[in-house]
Formats: sequence, C-alpha cells, structure tokens
Amino acid sequence: MEQPTPPTPPASAARPDAPAGAGARPVDSTRLPRRGAAIREVTVDGGPWQRLQQTNADATLDHCESWMDRLGWLANFDRVADGTTGPDRPGWQFSDSEVYKLIEALAWEHGRTGDPDVERRLRRLTTRIARAQDEDGYLNTCYGHSGRPPRWSDLEMGHELYCVGHLVQAAVARLRTSGRDELVEVAIRAADHVCREFGPGGRDGYGGHPEIELALAELGRATGERRYLDQARRFVDRRGRGDLVPPPLLGPDYFQDDLPVREADAWRGHAVRALYLAAGAVDVAVEDGDEELLGVIGQQWAHSVARRTHITGGMGSRHQDEGFGEDWELPADRAYCETCAGVASIMVSWRLYLATGDVRYADLIERTFYNVVATSPRSDGRAFFYSNPLHQRCPGEPSDEGEVNPRAEGGVRAPWFEVSCCPTNVARTLASWPAYAVSVEGDTVNLLQYAPGRVVVRLDDGAELALHIATAYPLEGEVTVTVERAPRRPVTVRFRVPHWASGATLATDPAISTHPGEPARRTARPGFVDVTRPLSPGDRLTLALPVAPRFTWPDPRIDALRGCVAVERGPVVLCLESTDLPGGVDIADVRVDPGHRPEDDGAGASAWCAITAASNGPAPDGAEPTPALAYGTERPAPPPCAAVRLRLIPYHDWAERGPATMRVWLPVASLA
Amino acid sequence: MEQPTPPTPPASAARPDAPAGAGARPVDSTRLPRRGAAIREVTVDGGPWQRLQQTNADATLDHCESWMDRLGWLANFDRVADGTTGPDRPGWQFSDSEVYKLIEALAWEHGRTGDPDVERRLRRLTTRIARAQDEDGYLNTCYGHSGRPPRWSDLEMGHELYCVGHLVQAAVARLRTSGRDELVEVAIRAADHVCREFGPGGRDGYGGHPEIELALAELGRATGERRYLDQARRFVDRRGRGDLVPPPLLGPDYFQDDLPVREADAWRGHAVRALYLAAGAVDVAVEDGDEELLGVIGQQWAHSVARRTHITGGMGSRHQDEGFGEDWELPADRAYCETCAGVASIMVSWRLYLATGDVRYADLIERTFYNVVATSPRSDGRAFFYSNPLHQRCPGEPSDEGEVNPRAEGGVRAPWFEVSCCPTNVARTLASWPAYAVSVEGDTVNLLQYAPGRVVVRLDDGAELALHIATAYPLEGEVTVTVERAPRRPVTVRFRVPHWASGATLATDPAISTHPGEPARRTARPGFVDVTRPLSPGDRLTLALPVAPRFTWPDPRIDALRGCVAVERGPVVLCLESTDLPGGVDIADVRVDPGHRPEDDGAGASAWCAITAASNGPAPDGAEPTPALAYGTERPAPPPCAAVRLRLIPYHDWAERGPATMRVWLPVASLA
Repeated sequence: MEQPTPPTPPASAARPDAPAGAGARPVDSTRLPRRGAAIREVTVDGGPWQRLQQTNADATLDHCESWMDRLGWLANFDRVADGTTGPDRPGWQFSDSEVYKLIEALAWEHGRTGDPDVERRLRRLTTRIARAQDEDGYLNTCYGHSGRPPRWSDLEMGHELYCVGHLVQAAVARLRTSGRDELVEVAIRAADHVCREFGPGGRDGYGGHPEIELALAELGRATGERRYLDQARRFVDRRGRGDLVPPPLLGPDYFQDDLPVREADAWRGHAVRALYLAAGAVDVAVEDGDEELLGVIGQQWAHSVARRTHITGGMGSRHQDEGFGEDWELPADRAYCETCAGVASIMVSWRLYLATGDVRYADLIERTFYNVVATSPRSDGRAFFYSNPLHQRCPGEPSDEGEVNPRAEGGVRAPWFEVSCCPTNVARTLASWPAYAVSVEGDTVNLLQYAPGRVVVRLDDGAELALHIATAYPLEGEVTVTVERAPRRPVTVRFRVPHWASGATLATDPAISTHPGEPARRTARPGFVDVTRPLSPGDRLTLALPVAPRFTWPDPRIDALRGCVAVERGPVVLCLESTDLPGGVDIADVRVDPGHRPEDDGAGASAWCAITAASNGPAPDGAEPTPALAYGTERPAPPPCAAVRLRLIPYHDWAERGPATMRVWLPVASLA
Repeated sequence: MEQPTPPTPPASAARPDAPAGAGARPVDSTRLPRRGAAIREVTVDGGPWQRLQQTNADATLDHCESWMDRLGWLANFDRVADGTTGPDRPGWQFSDSEVYKLIEALAWEHGRTGDPDVERRLRRLTTRIARAQDEDGYLNTCYGHSGRPPRWSDLEMGHELYCVGHLVQAAVARLRTSGRDELVEVAIRAADHVCREFGPGGRDGYGGHPEIELALAELGRATGERRYLDQARRFVDRRGRGDLVPPPLLGPDYFQDDLPVREADAWRGHAVRALYLAAGAVDVAVEDGDEELLGVIGQQWAHSVARRTHITGGMGSRHQDEGFGEDWELPADRAYCETCAGVASIMVSWRLYLATGDVRYADLIERTFYNVVATSPRSDGRAFFYSNPLHQRCPGEPSDEGEVNPRAEGGVRAPWFEVSCCPTNVARTLASWPAYAVSVEGDTVNLLQYAPGRVVVRLDDGAELALHIATAYPLEGEVTVTVERAPRRPVTVRFRVPHWASGATLATDPAISTHPGEPARRTARPGFVDVTRPLSPGDRLTLALPVAPRFTWPDPRIDALRGCVAVERGPVVLCLESTDLPGGVDIADVRVDPGHRPEDDGAGASAWCAITAASNGPAPDGAEPTPALAYGTERPAPPPCAAVRLRLIPYHDWAERGPATMRVWLPVASLA
C-alpha cells in the first residue's frame, strides 16, 4: 500500500550559496535548521582521526582496489561490458557494492584533499563500471546477463537494489564534492531505472537488504528531483508486508519484514539491514515532514540503544543472522558488533541528530567512532575486523596476508573477507569523518567531535567563522578553541559535553568584557554548553573534559555481564589483553578490585587486580567425586592471590601486538 | 589414508543363548565384559518414564507418521518407485532419515510390547521404502533419480550416507527384536552398496553428517559381518582430512573435518555431528581393541562435559552452526541444546559406559534423560522443543498446531519443524529407554536408572535374576528392590549413586544372616554401591537417595552464569517460570537468596527470593542525563523489596502451561 505523496515543493538542488565541493556533506536536507559541516569546513591536523584518515588515504584505498582487482570483482564489470558473463562469476552477488563503496570513499577523499591521484583512480573505476550499464540504466554484474539469473529474480537475497543504493551514494558524494560527471550520470540512469521498475505501475516489491532508500532520498536532495524521494518512501512504506521469504531457519525479522517500519518499537534482525532502513526512514520522514515516522525511529533508537547496544556502541549480538538480540542479550564473547553495523549506526544517529539536535545522538556517534570504526582497521590500514567481540577466550589464528578470510569472526584482523563489506565501509567513513564533527544552525556552530585542526564554517547568513582547535583529545581532556575570524555580532560556539564528562569546565579568555557577570571558568554539565557573544580573533575558549579512567557498570538486566565492570577513559573503552598479563596467567582468572580506582597511564589505565585460581574445587567432605560437569554443590569462592596492577589498553588497539585473549568486561572481586 | 585392518576374528552374529528379540538392545558388542539389558529384560510400570513411553506409543508414533504423510516425505519413496521424481520434491534432503528413525522407534516399540498394530505399521512403511530401492542397493529419494541431482554429488550436505545410517540403525533394531525381514534385507543391500561404493577401490570420501559409522558398526555386530565394521573404521579414519567444503561463513570444524578424530581434544562444531561421530568411533575402537582411540573419545567426553555442557546435560551453545562453543561458552539464553544432541550424547555416553563401566557416563545419561529428552515432548506427545534454552526472556509465540514451524528456537513446543529431526529422535529413544536402565556383567546386575517395574536378566552363565523395583523416584528418593528369583550362589546387585546424592544410604532386609558383620543400613557414597551375596526371594534392598532441592553453582569461568545459582532436585533441574510469578513481576527482577535453602514441595521447590527494581537509576548528583546506554558510572545496587517465596518447577515441565518466560539460572542477592 502506497502512502499518498504530500504536496510539498521539491527540495532545492543545493544550498544557494554553495559551489560544488564547498557544501559537500553526506546528508544534506534544506528542510532542517541545522546542517553538518561540509567536508572541507573541518580540517584535522593531528590526533587519531588524522592518523586514521591518512592511513586510509595511504593504504586502505589502494588495498581495497587491489583485492577487488585480484579477486575479479572489478573484472566482473568488464565481462558484462564485453558480453562474456557466465555461470562462473567470482564474488558474492553483492560484490559490486564494494566497488561502489570504494568509489564513494575516493569521492570523499578527493573532496577532502583534492588529491589528483585519487581523482584519476576514481575516474578509471567509473569508466569501467559505466561500460557495464545496460541501455535502460540497469547495472549489475550478477544478474540480468548471459549465463546469469534474470534481473529481479531474487529480491530477498539478490541485493540488486542494495547495489544501486551504494552506487547512488557514491554518486551523491561525487556530485557534492566535484559536480555532475560520468559517475553521477551512471547513477542517475540506474536510479531512474529503479524508479521506473519499482514505481507506480511497476513491480510492487522491495529488496531484502535496505540501502536504496537512504540513497534515493539523498539523490533526491542532491538533485532536487522529488521522484527519488517518492521512490524512497515507497520502499520504506512497502516493507513489513511479509513478501520476502526468509532463508532457512530465519524469520522475516531478518529483513525487517515482520512489521511495517512505523509499527516496530525496536531494531531487530540483521543489524546492518535494520540500521540502513532506519536511516532511510529518517530521510523520508524529514523530507515529508512526517513527524510521526521521525518519532518512531527516534523511539526505536532509544529502545535499541538502551537495551540492545554494547558498551562500544557496537550493535548485533547474534552470529546466526548477524542480528540484534532481544533486550538485554548483550554477551561479551559472542558480541557480533559488525563493523558495518557501527558505520550504519553512525548514519542513523547522524540523521537523527540533524533532525532533532539531541546531544545523545552525537554522544553515541563518538562512542561508535572510537570503539567500533577505529577498532576495525589494523594500524597499517591493510587488515580489518569484521566482527568486534568484547571478549576473546582463545587467541585468533594469525591471518594469512595473501588469503581471503572465509569467516567473519573476531580475534584477528584479516586483509579481506569472502563477504568483505567492512573494509570499504570503513574507508568511506574515515574519508568523510570531518563531516560528522561539526554542525551549523543559524549563528551557532556545534562542536560535536573533538580533534586538533581548523573549523571554518559559513554561518547561515554567509558570514564566516574560523576557529583553530588545539587538543590532544582523547589522550588529554582539554580542547582549546582559538577564534581566528568571526563576524562582528554575537555568535554561539556550542560544545558537546559527553554524558560521562561529569565535572567538565569551560573557561573563556579573555574573561569577557562584554559579559561581565560570566565567570572565566564555569562548570559544563553533560549535554551542550554554549558561549554566545561577539568573538574576536585571539579569543580562547577552553573546554576541559575529565578523561581520567573510570569504572562503568552494566545494567543488572544484562545477564551476560553480571558481576563485571568495564573501564573507560574519556570516550575510549579500555580492555585487558593477555599480552599485558604476567606469564602463565589465564585471562579468565583475573578479577578487578572496584575499591581501587583505575589509575591513568596517559593512554589507557592500570587497575588493581587479583589473580585467582578459578575452580570449583572438590566438595569439603570429599564425598563427591571429581565432578564431570562444570557445576557443583559448593559455592565457588576462590581465594584471591597476589594483588597486581595490570595495564588496560584502548579496546581499539587490541590484537595489534599479535593474537591474544582479551576482555572488556572484567569480573570484580574485592581485594581483602 | 586407510588404517590397516587388524586381523581380528569376525564378531559373532548374536550372543549364543539369545533368541531373536530376547537379546534386543541398541548397542551390543560381544567384546565387552558388560552388556546393556535387553529391551524386554526391563519393564517399567509407573513413573515418568512409563508415562513418556506410553505417550510415545499412543500419540507420538502416529503423530510423526501423519506429519510425514501430510508433507509428502513418505510419498517421496513412492515417486522414486514409480519413476515420477522431479525437481519439486518436498522436504529437506535428509527427510528420508526421519522415516527411518520412525521405523526404528516402531521396531523398539514392537520389541518392547509386541503390539501387532505397531508391527503392521512398521511393515507398511517397510514395503513403501523397499519399493524405492534401486537394483544395486542405492536408496535415497533426493538424489540419483530423474530430475534430481546425481548420487553422491554433494557429500558435504547431501546426507546420503547419513540416511543409509538411519536405515541401518532401524534394521538393526528390527533384526534384534524380531529377526531378519524385508527391512533388514533392504538395509543390508543399502549397506553393501555403501561398502562397494566407498570401500577399497571405491570413492575415498566421507559424508558431511556422521551417522553411517555407528550404524555400520552395529550392523557388523548384529550380522557378524566384519566388512561393515571395516567400512565404519574407514569413514572414521578418513575424517579430518579437510575434504569437505564448509557452507559459507562456517569452518571445517562444522563437520569435524578440521582434525582427524584421534587428534581432537574436545568436541566442536555441529553438536549432533560431533556426537554421532564420537559414538561411531567408540564402536570402532571397541571392536578393534583400539585402546588409544577409546581413550581419545573418553578424553574428549571429559573435556567437553566439564567445559562445554549445560547443567541439563544439553550440548551446543551456538545457533549459527548448531554447535559447541569454546570452553566456558555456556550462555543460558542462547543455549542451543538441541534435543537431538541430547539423544546423541546419551548414545556416546552409553557406549563409553559399556566400554569402561565408569559411573560418570551413567550419571550424565540420567541428567540428559530428565532434562533434555524429557523436556522436548509436550505432555500430549504431539509437540516438541527442538532447542532447549535455559533462559527465555520473551514468551514464545503460540505454535499453530496445523503448521510446520520454520524455526528451531526455544520457547514453544511445535508440532513439526521444517528440519524435523527431533520428534523421531525422541520417539526412538523413549521406545528403547529400558535398554539404558540396566546392565549386566558376569554375576553383577547394574541398576543404572531407577523406575518402578521389574528387571529380569539372564546372567552370563544363563542363570536368571528377577528383581521387583518399587520407587516414586525422582519425586522421592527411595528405591526398594525386592528379589523375586535368584540363583543359589552369590550375585551382585550394584546400585548407581548419582554424584549429587551425598548422604545416600543402602539398607538390606533381612539384615543378612550370611554376612553378620554388614550393617543393615550403610552409607552409599556417590559412584557404585554393591550388595554381593546369595539372594533369596523376598530379600529387600533399599537405596535412599536424598532428592531434597539443593543449590548448584557454576564454575566461575562460565561468564554467562556469573552471580547465578540453579536449584536441582534429585536428577531434575528446576526453573522459575513466569506463570508462577506474582502479577506484574518481570522474571529479570527476581533474585534468589542463597542464605535460605530451597524447600521441597514434593515435585519442585520453593525458594526465598527478592523482587528488585532493576535499574541503574540516575547518578546521585543528577549531573548525568538519563543515560542512553545500558551502562553507567554508578554501581547498580537495587534495594531488595519484599521477600517472597517462589515456586520452582521441573525444567522439563516448563511451557506446558502456555507461553512463558523462564530461568534456570537465578541471580543471587542476599535478603538483608
């Protein structure tokens, strides 16, 4: 059943004052009072995000292209163009999407840096895919050509709409960073084909893996063409009719096809599917002024974040369907936390933040950036975690650098996977990181994510505000903003104070001639804290966030974490890795003493722990034979042995020193 | 690589004194000093096992046949016979095996009771499958005929050898309970075909799902034909070469193809596969006197039972591959504990018990019978659990009695499943239950499982020992054995004292004129306790097992159970079901006080509990906004509210009163 299209005017193609490139951001609705910074409005010149971006540029982009070349995923396009397709096509049915996500990453990278080599690489790939497009706009290397299954013959698992979605997202990035080119033309032809095929009078269907929805919505915004938004809404509205036949042993919730989007109260089923769908639904809700739908997705977010999200921001607790579990089903060892679900969660939270301005969304984005997105790539950018568990009992097997890893388990970063969605998703996200760091609304610039560098934004009236940011965050908690240029009228610099930053302060220097009553240094409570005044070059605003290590406790309804505590330091989740254990100690035998605060070591922490001999022991009267099972009649109370101070490192750095066991959640025991 | 066949003499076809039927038991090696009771040597005339057997006979056998008829799984055989096969075959590729398991159940049921209606039903099915056998002995309705994939074209997932295995197991049951008939001839032709096809000079392969190994070994024992044993050994020895290509995202451990059987130190991968393989390996080891292999399987058992087995005896912690997890990976909520894995575990333990006489195997068999096998069927025998989790957070959806359940999740018993291996596995196991209750070695009768009824065994010299057993076990702990007939010389009655039965006693009446020094009542420590003497009709031996409810504690290395305790009563694991909670109370908010012993209520128990308001609550200074996530800086210490006494029921009875939430493992909190 189609929702009637409200008679809203078409969205304009771009903000009036924005030349191509200047206003480039992944999500851009003119209907909202706030916008994300354009990718060039924020420059990062140090710290972990600069390092991650640089490694992405220097290694990952090339790494991904090389693997796809080697595996024939690129050549699949040539075979379609040359008419030499057949039953022996390499790669999964969705491998085209990896090429598109790489192109999107290249588009953002070029938008960010203008690197001509990146531009050449992007054009070369574009030419190759363009040749594979059919006359009518259909573009897919798995379906619809000689020796291959017919078009749209497997809406459940075929991923054809999904692949078009990623193509369109790449093209939107290109359109906004560089302007209309061959890639944009290809994507528009493909999107037009989808609109004809699945629009009014066409197939009344929808795809098994959401993604087309958010892509078409953004294409509608970027081109000002209402029909793409209408088609996005159709896909969102159709879903939940139960048309899709689930794979064996899975249910329709795998596809989020068990309920219409607006009838669900939580995310369920395959996490990446659920999150891409939610992102598309927010886009549709925003463009149509559909407050009800927006409210529903916000409520799904609140429910799912409160009860189905791991401490890292990671989502997904089940391996079977790469899916969400039930409320409170958050096992550390089997945490799936697919890297792509982290990316998708940021996509949803970012849209909800733009729509509402609620700080909680930016908080979760930070958590997910530091503890999921930053965890996936190895420090050299050439291997990745697909799943991000919070507890590793056995060291992973060292991954062969020349081999495709068939499995998506955690433990060791692998150079490539059979299902290799994560590396390119990391690449496009890191390349566009600045766009999530800052937003602008009216005369306010919102500093959402902290990194050293420069923010130069155009306020809504066209005036420019330029801020220099100095910080060693998250190693240190001080963020110093120095005004470089500002209009001659009051403006607002709004700082995000993360929910954990109890005791933060904001200092202003000079101590404000214009606002004599305002103290030079004031408490900044979690949420947003504003400085509103005329600013002059040289003015300094210093936010001090307490990043000292702290204990974090789980809700008692999370059965898998009962009796455990985690340590966080600023936005960074820490972990204990076996590499830092005394020889011969099993990570299962470590207990942390919550009576001793963890101590700061400048990057991680050290915590007082007891090493126990974990064992039920024999029954005291000796009556019971050595129990065959792991259950006994005596309550186990292993005596703590020597207390030791153990080093905890950032979770995102684990397994960088070789295969290891690891725990984020540490059982507690008082040191007597 | 083939192991050389040692030049051992062929096993004899049957024990010399055993007419067809009299010596019928599922596992029967003449090479061992002990044998299980024959199915007619033990009669159960009351208690849960009589009830379960009767319901199986009255309802389940018919229920299974009706469903397979309705779904076309029986007609698949007719279509092969009639040459009308095609691509549209109903059922999974292994559906033939369900028919064979039903026939095996019928064979045991007929062997146990002699019911002529069961005999007719068995013959009717036999005729139907016999018509589908090819000239050369090949028998499979999924492969090898018109419109179907060729024979042996999918060794990984085709289950052809697996299906022959179940056919052969059915035929062995028939041969032993009734003699050589059409079913036996069909199975022998099929087994001969397998030996030709996969024997020396044939295909050097093995199947993805073990089962053929134990079946051929038993056929060799039952027929005295050495070649079946040789072929069983070939299959056991070939496995682990890595020939089998795993399904996407799974590894070769799924098939136990990662390591040769004798190089593995624990069970891993798909639980039913791992356990059927282990059972076959024990058979091969026993027949060949291969002590090394026997020791390896015993060691795998010890490791896997100590670290990879749930309190119910259930095995399997992962849904993705229906498989074992790592050591200590034993989540209550995602416990898979497939019913078939419980059956298979009993098959392995029984073989190891027969080979070694170790009481631990019989202990685990009892635990698994009461808490997995008895849990699966609904009280009317017409619906089943496939998976048996130990924690249900949301009530299951009521199952439509007329619909095939597509999912294997716990929560509600379903009449039939798409993959419906469990109902027929339960049926064949319940029909042969008496064969696991008693064993004989020399002049000793071992009473392993307790039920009211009669045990009439022939000792090894042909003398008969007849015992009447009166007990309300497990509701009550007293088991009274009254001698009915006994030879005029000392014999031994050996009682199993379960590992949990600390404080058991054994009383003899009369207090033994022949052994004046022996007290009338003595302590019986866990393990075995013997009465050895000449017995006279009317002599009474009374074992008293303490079945009062008791707390059971998990090994502290089981992360998922930290801070929890279970309550057991005799061999029965108890649970808290939401049906027994005060209105409005969430099962997540119940804490049990380990300071108060649970009290007996005659079947389950009642335990003192606190109902808590489980919530992190806001931070005390109010600085922190309502946290978006389920993690906070304050250690949660919800105050216990009113203490209440809550009823705990046998786990095997849960969900009989409608969909409910449930916990076996209860978080502890002291009532202040």
